[in-house]
Amino acid sequence: MSEIEVYRRQGLGSRVGFGKKAALVIVDFTNGFNDPNVFGGGNIGEAVEHTRGLLEAARRHGLPVAHTRVIYADDAANAGVFTMKSPRLKELTKSNPMSQIVPALTPRAGELIVDKTEASGFFGTGLAAWLALRRVDTLVVAGCTTSGCVRATVVDACSHNLRPIVPRDCVGDRALGPHEASLFDMDQKYADVMSSNEVLDALARLEH
Amino acid sequence: MSEIEVYRRQGLGSRVGFGKKAALVIVDFTNGFNDPNVFGGGNIGEAVEHTRGLLEAARRHGLPVAHTRVIYADDAANAGVFTMKSPRLKELTKSNPMSQIVPALTPRAGELIVDKTEASGFFGTGLAAWLALRRVDTLVVAGCTTSGCVRATVVDACSHNLRPIVPRDCVGDRALGPHEASLFDMDQKYADVMSSNEVLDALARLEH
Amino acid sequence: MSEIEVYRRQGLGSRVGFGKKAALVIVDFTNGFNDPNVFGGGNIGEAVEHTRGLLEAARRHGLPVAHTRVIYADDAANAGVFTMKSPRLKELTKSNPMSQIVPALTPRAGELIVDKTEASGFFGTGLAAWLALRRVDTLVVAGCTTSGCVRATVVDACSHNLRPIVPRDCVGDRALGPHEASLFDMDQKYADVMSSNEVLDALARLEH
Amino acid sequence: MSEIEVYRRQGLGSRVGFGKKAALVIVDFTNGFNDPNVFGGGNIGEAVEHTRGLLEAARRHGLPVAHTRVIYADDAANAGVFTMKSPRLKELTKSNPMSQIVPALTPRAGELIVDKTEASGFFGTGLAAWLALRRVDTLVVAGCTTSGCVRATVVDACSHNLRPIVPRDCVGDRALGPHEASLFDMDQKYADVMSSNEVLDALARLEH
Repeated sequence: MSEIEVYRRQGLGSRVGFGKKAALVIVDFTNGFNDPNVFGGGNIGEAVEHTRGLLEAARRHGLPVAHTRVIYADDAANAGVFTMKSPRLKELTKSNPMSQIVPALTPRAGELIVDKTEASGFFGTGLAAWLALRRVDTLVVAGCTTSGCVRATVVDACSHNLRPIVPRDCVGDRALGPHEASLFDMDQKYADVMSSNEVLDALARLEH
Repeated sequence: MSEIEVYRRQGLGSRVGFGKKAALVIVDFTNGFNDPNVFGGGNIGEAVEHTRGLLEAARRHGLPVAHTRVIYADDAANAGVFTMKSPRLKELTKSNPMSQIVPALTPRAGELIVDKTEASGFFGTGLAAWLALRRVDTLVVAGCTTSGCVRATVVDACSHNLRPIVPRDCVGDRALGPHEASLFDMDQKYADVMSSNEVLDALARLEH
Repeated sequence: MSEIEVYRRQGLGSRVGFGKKAALVIVDFTNGFNDPNVFGGGNIGEAVEHTRGLLEAARRHGLPVAHTRVIYADDAANAGVFTMKSPRLKELTKSNPMSQIVPALTPRAGELIVDKTEASGFFGTGLAAWLALRRVDTLVVAGCTTSGCVRATVVDACSHNLRPIVPRDCVGDRALGPHEASLFDMDQKYADVMSSNEVLDALARLEH
Repeated sequence: MSEIEVYRRQGLGSRVGFGKKAALVIVDFTNGFNDPNVFGGGNIGEAVEHTRGLLEAARRHGLPVAHTRVIYADDAANAGVFTMKSPRLKELTKSNPMSQIVPALTPRAGELIVDKTEASGFFGTGLAAWLALRRVDTLVVAGCTTSGCVRATVVDACSHNLRPIVPRDCVGDRALGPHEASLFDMDQKYADVMSSNEVLDALARLEH
């Protein structure tokens, strides 16, 4: 396919590989993003299911684990341009059940919960500093949506010089076209996209 | 088309509109990104051409104008994960002719030149502060590539609460699939995508 | 005094003045920082008292108002280097009465509450983007401590190209030496330091 | 002395210690900041001298080394609030000899040169990401001025969760009052302040 040919000729799509210390960040797997009547749909439900094993492995290996979720103030005082595009995001207040992380992936003590108002888990949050304290150099990114908050988090991880790894079956989107397009873009420019089984194998080989 | 239907039902794709003070940022329209043998190709050449009128109008209206370009140190001391994915980026040193902005869009005195190493024009740069000083609330983003540095800059503009406007004929990519996919995503979630003629009309109506 | 002479000769200490749109940020005026047995003492209590009139005027003029406070997770999952220096900061969890803003300055609906873990109100928060949305170019900074979170917030405001104004009687510190030293430094390098009466006069003159 | 007593009672001034991987950043030791007729004076010259051995040791141990300097565009297009306070900063263009790092500390290939317009070496630069790539958790900060760019860099290092270490004889200021006051504040709240000999001993003990 000729599009791939352009990318190859220009040297894109090289591998970042795993560094020495990985962490897992799970982006926005909340009830609201797992519900097609709110912000869910597409293959998000399946991605939640596949992420269970990944989270379990991360915990078993003692990897730092962070969970992001979208939270706006009750009075929407911190709403902005992002909510101009998607006004219903403002419903995701702290007490709204839709804002809570799905039961299958409930955070444990010591795991970071990142409340955010923007697409990227890094923007206006303490995520980068939290990872720096732990000397993390590789960030496995699961969650949703692939073309939204996952991608924004992956691009920022790359800019922060954390090697982004995307387990393709652990990310989902409300629509499959944007999901596939963002997997392609991320794999060419920002991250290594692979199956969660490949990620699990690599994590087992890292020193802990 | 059913994908659009999901987005509409969930309230995505609302308009941000123009605020009170717009600026223009032109992303990475350098010789290297305008050359299919380096990082160019696709519809980038056409986008450069269409951006000429936009730049001229921005200057006529006295809008702040910024130009970004990718620049790495001669010894690649500041290379990182982004160059692991695209090693040839490291060739874009300050003295490389490929790093210079295309002659048709040469910056003028008083315009900001943002040298960057990451995808987003905001990451690790003074762009946000420069726009804040000028009380800019609306950012027209031209440049390339649509699915790369333009999109990353647009997502960050949205997070910084600057209303992103994307003139679709003034952004280009090395491949049309990713170009179209990112236009769709940006229009649904981060920016208003419109023709450059519509942008010109809106700029003429803004107070200056 | 000869120290001042060096500063004058090198051109430091020029005035930033007021821009076109001011906001007020009140830094860490919480019960814990108003209590000498926790993190308070010195002239912090007086500064709280003087800030009442300033807050009232800001509200009367319709200025954007933000309040910052230090909040750590119940499990201290987000503690870091700052709490290595001051371990008791970790006690400032969301439900601790010491973390609440002092009753005299209780936030109103629409005012931004910035929960932070670091000294600066800007670091890892949405404050800069919130001010950008409101086209703020001038930031009046009250709060405590002068040599700690106030100064860090002022330095960041300056870097974000917001003109920092420090009403000297509305900032306080647990010890007067550091308080005075930081007022001097800020006035020379980052902010205009003046009395709150001068600030009130200037705010009355700004268009709203 | 009673001021210290307050700090001790509130638990400030604990030690951060050295982590596992240190880097050295030398802040603004340029010709202009080493010249009393530009931005120098006080004990800056001595601090430059003491930094020679520190830099040599850092290189011998293979530590990452970064150098910051203030650089404004020739047309001052990127000047802002910081230059409103200190207008002569705008003279520090790239080609001005005053902007060059002092000959005694000339950077080597592979060392990072951070051109910045603000006080902190982190603000609007790639420094944090550069350190993240190298898994640095401890940042030794030399340079000038103690109460200006050194302190701003130290506060940001702390916020980024890098343990800041300040070798007190390797930092200098144009005036000794602010120098001492900032050493006190940093030692209480953000950094471990010690002699450069103590730093050299600690570096020798770190694994490399």
